[in-house]
Amino acid sequence: MQLTIDLDSEVPIYQQIRDRVVEAVAVGDLVEGDSLPSTRQLAADLLINFHTVNKAYDLLRKEGVIRVNRKSGAVVRRDGRSGPPEASITEEWQRRLRTLLAEGVVHGLTDDDVLARSAEVLAAFDNRRENPTP
Amino acid sequence: MQLTIDLDSEVPIYQQIRDRVVEAVAVGDLVEGDSLPSTRQLAADLLINFHTVNKAYDLLRKEGVIRVNRKSGAVVRRDGRSGPPEASITEEWQRRLRTLLAEGVVHGLTDDDVLARSAEVLAAFDNRRENPTP
Repeated sequence: MQLTIDLDSEVPIYQQIRDRVVEAVAVGDLVEGDSLPSTRQLAADLLINFHTVNKAYDLLRKEGVIRVNRKSGAVVRRDGRSGPPEASITEEWQRRLRTLLAEGVVHGLTDDDVLARSAEVLAAFDNRRENPTP
Repeated sequence: MQLTIDLDSEVPIYQQIRDRVVEAVAVGDLVEGDSLPSTRQLAADLLINFHTVNKAYDLLRKEGVIRVNRKSGAVVRRDGRSGPPEASITEEWQRRLRTLLAEGVVHGLTDDDVLARSAEVLAAFDNRRENPTP
């Protein structure tokens, strides 16, 4: 897994790590059973504090994306699409969808713009999953 | 404007204030020229520190949703849909769209689910704008 962090971003680093892992699972770069780097390893690679990596992994664990145990470390718990979704997770997700779409509207995107961009993003995920880079 | 904050949420309070204002503009509850409450007033109403409100307003100002000046306070700068969107804002928005959709996919939503939910949210905004509550 290639994990790129933008230190100049306003998005906290733990959130960026979490976002990149979620995206890697969505496009199939990470599949069920894959190991993530150890927190110390990833912290060393990214030149960041390992508590920051811990915070990201802890969030991913709470969200059901990875499981973490002492022996095997952080392991991807599910593939993208391995449904069905849990109602509580979907509800929270939909709240954030509402906020993000509101923002798109406020910034002048039309409904059609928003839906076309969404369809485009999803198609790119599908394409990437069906044509994995070796 | 009715502004409800969830103190038990993991979402920071300043972010919740920002999200609620963006949503109010999207549905037309707030229109161009409307004043937001003063930071001290809102802080007192919500029983929170006024620095928290300041942080939310500052974010909204940076995002181009409100303007703030000493005399008139925080004022809504644009209606929803008053485009065209700025490229830099749309780019950043699309990055977050990508992350949010990735998350939906990881949690088992299909492309159709995601698009149907998005269309539903946008229709609810439109409906609310066209039928404002008195």
